[in-house]
Amino acid sequence: MMSHFYGVIMAGGSGTRLWPLSRQQQPKQALRLIGERTMLQHAVDRLRPLLPVERVLIVTAADYVPLLSPQVPDLPRDNFIVEPMARGTAGAIGLAAVHLQQRDPEAIMAVLTADHFIRAEDTFRSALAAACEAARQGHLVTLGIRPTYAATGYGYIRRGGRIATIDGFEVYAVDAFVEKPDAQRAAQFCAGDVYSWNSGMFMWRVQRIMDEFARHMPDFYAQLQAIANAMRAPTADEVLMAIWPTIRKETIDYGVMEKASDVVVIPVDIGWSDIGDWDALYDLQSTDPQDNVVDGDHFGVATTGCLVRGGKRLIATIGLSDTIIIDTDDVILVCARNRAQEVRALVNELQSSGRTEYL
Amino acid sequence: MMSHFYGVIMAGGSGTRLWPLSRQQQPKQALRLIGERTMLQHAVDRLRPLLPVERVLIVTAADYVPLLSPQVPDLPRDNFIVEPMARGTAGAIGLAAVHLQQRDPEAIMAVLTADHFIRAEDTFRSALAAACEAARQGHLVTLGIRPTYAATGYGYIRRGGRIATIDGFEVYAVDAFVEKPDAQRAAQFCAGDVYSWNSGMFMWRVQRIMDEFARHMPDFYAQLQAIANAMRAPTADEVLMAIWPTIRKETIDYGVMEKASDVVVIPVDIGWSDIGDWDALYDLQSTDPQDNVVDGDHFGVATTGCLVRGGKRLIATIGLSDTIIIDTDDVILVCARNRAQEVRALVNELQSSGRTEYL
Repeated sequence: MMSHFYGVIMAGGSGTRLWPLSRQQQPKQALRLIGERTMLQHAVDRLRPLLPVERVLIVTAADYVPLLSPQVPDLPRDNFIVEPMARGTAGAIGLAAVHLQQRDPEAIMAVLTADHFIRAEDTFRSALAAACEAARQGHLVTLGIRPTYAATGYGYIRRGGRIATIDGFEVYAVDAFVEKPDAQRAAQFCAGDVYSWNSGMFMWRVQRIMDEFARHMPDFYAQLQAIANAMRAPTADEVLMAIWPTIRKETIDYGVMEKASDVVVIPVDIGWSDIGDWDALYDLQSTDPQDNVVDGDHFGVATTGCLVRGGKRLIATIGLSDTIIIDTDDVILVCARNRAQEVRALVNELQSSGRTEYL
Repeated sequence: MMSHFYGVIMAGGSGTRLWPLSRQQQPKQALRLIGERTMLQHAVDRLRPLLPVERVLIVTAADYVPLLSPQVPDLPRDNFIVEPMARGTAGAIGLAAVHLQQRDPEAIMAVLTADHFIRAEDTFRSALAAACEAARQGHLVTLGIRPTYAATGYGYIRRGGRIATIDGFEVYAVDAFVEKPDAQRAAQFCAGDVYSWNSGMFMWRVQRIMDEFARHMPDFYAQLQAIANAMRAPTADEVLMAIWPTIRKETIDYGVMEKASDVVVIPVDIGWSDIGDWDALYDLQSTDPQDNVVDGDHFGVATTGCLVRGGKRLIATIGLSDTIIIDTDDVILVCARNRAQEVRALVNELQSSGRTEYL
């Protein structure tokens, strides 16, 4: 076990891209998308060989606690860090950091995600151990994902010179964080080995990130300090509820990472996917002889390359290819696989046309 | 009103081609497919300007009477002619004929269908009036549908010389009944004006068809006579139940029409369709600006040429073209429009794999 090491899982997102399975009250991290465990359960389980569950924290919205806490019954209820409202990744990380600092001023804090898939869990854990060592040495560490295609949907990290090798993992200085590129630049980024995807997974000493907040986000730092000072007082909740709405929404990337010095990246190959749409879920799963991925009761004739997720009904298909069918109690989605990314737009349209019962 | 004229509507079919909306216990004639009325209601309604409803008979299976009779509440219950089991169109017509003969030996009997669509109802009624006149003169009359495409799914009628014109309708001697042709012959049949589709609609004096049964189906005729003789006795049902299972299944075409002399055909243009599959239903209905035919709650993005029939759920589609979606309480069908004819095979497969709950 790595001493003072804590896993902080960000689980506050609502997510519309896997609609109609994901809903406002049934976010992606609560869903069983791959195998029998929910995404949150996968996220906790893959940490278990590294640390006792008492050192796993989950940052989420108050609404989601009743949904998520039964999924990890052995996690102490105090390990749910509840944001009164979403304030960006900087907000979530800052709130977790002040909690952690009170528990263990020496804490090393891994910032992890609840709704991403990681196929190579052993490699992931080895990478976390290496990142933990780099963080212990004082760096702000990011886990970079080696690009497997010219994605335009992720930010990229450009590495500079190598500064260390830890347990076989190379540690590079970060040269720059690069915003989501267009297709041409993405192709360039993907061709070489200088760029990684920014996965949103980080590691640092809790003291170090608090120092960075103080330097780059001084208002936020002051707000965090006020919350921290009240944390053991009877008025803790009151103070949090008073301060939190006044905090400006900010991402950790823009708020801290792009401005800080001594940021390092450890590029990893861990079979990572953010399951950004239904087509990505298709790609992650093994297909049957007709190239279909089926979960539920399906009866297909001349049906190939389809993702079929049944609910309580029989889904019969004839002459269908490369199509997604998602059946739920109140909505059926039928979507061309190559347009899966438009689900989000459809959900936005539902919202703007007032059909909120389906969100 | 045409004296002694009776409409006999054949409504015994179960039909699997509009599955999953049509089921064994919910046959096509009971469904609302076009407009607000069921197919049976359309079939009765289009006769109403011609004759009082007391002269409409409906031949069907015992199972279907509780389903169908509430659809035509003004039809006398005795006008349901109940077949103990299906014995082909000859059986159904023969049973109706003996009933009619008891009511009115002078009856002229139109044999009509409960599950076909007729767009030009006025023309249809005019054609029936002309056919009634031809039947009164003693002919066996068939209504032939002028082919609109080279259909391989229907039998054809080849006409011979014209023998009369009645109220603008030309009456031709029938030269031959031709079985379902292959595509090449169908194209030939469709090109000229000598062939009509055999619509299964007939007209004759009831005495005439009984004579034909006696001549061409003597065993059947004897069985009908036995049923007729018992019809007013207390044992009528017993006799029917004893005899009916021993009757050989036969179509009226093979049993009588192909063998009889003095058969005439009246070719008509009445916007007829047997709604043989979901694609045919798409073709019959007017489309929205995206060429979709929608019945129910549909939210579509880049969706064109689709037939969407909703049940109780929202159906959301993205990037879908020329596809049929039918949602029911226990089954969803998603089917390429150009493969709609394969629904029947799928239903057969469900049956052979024992999934009878969906039939």
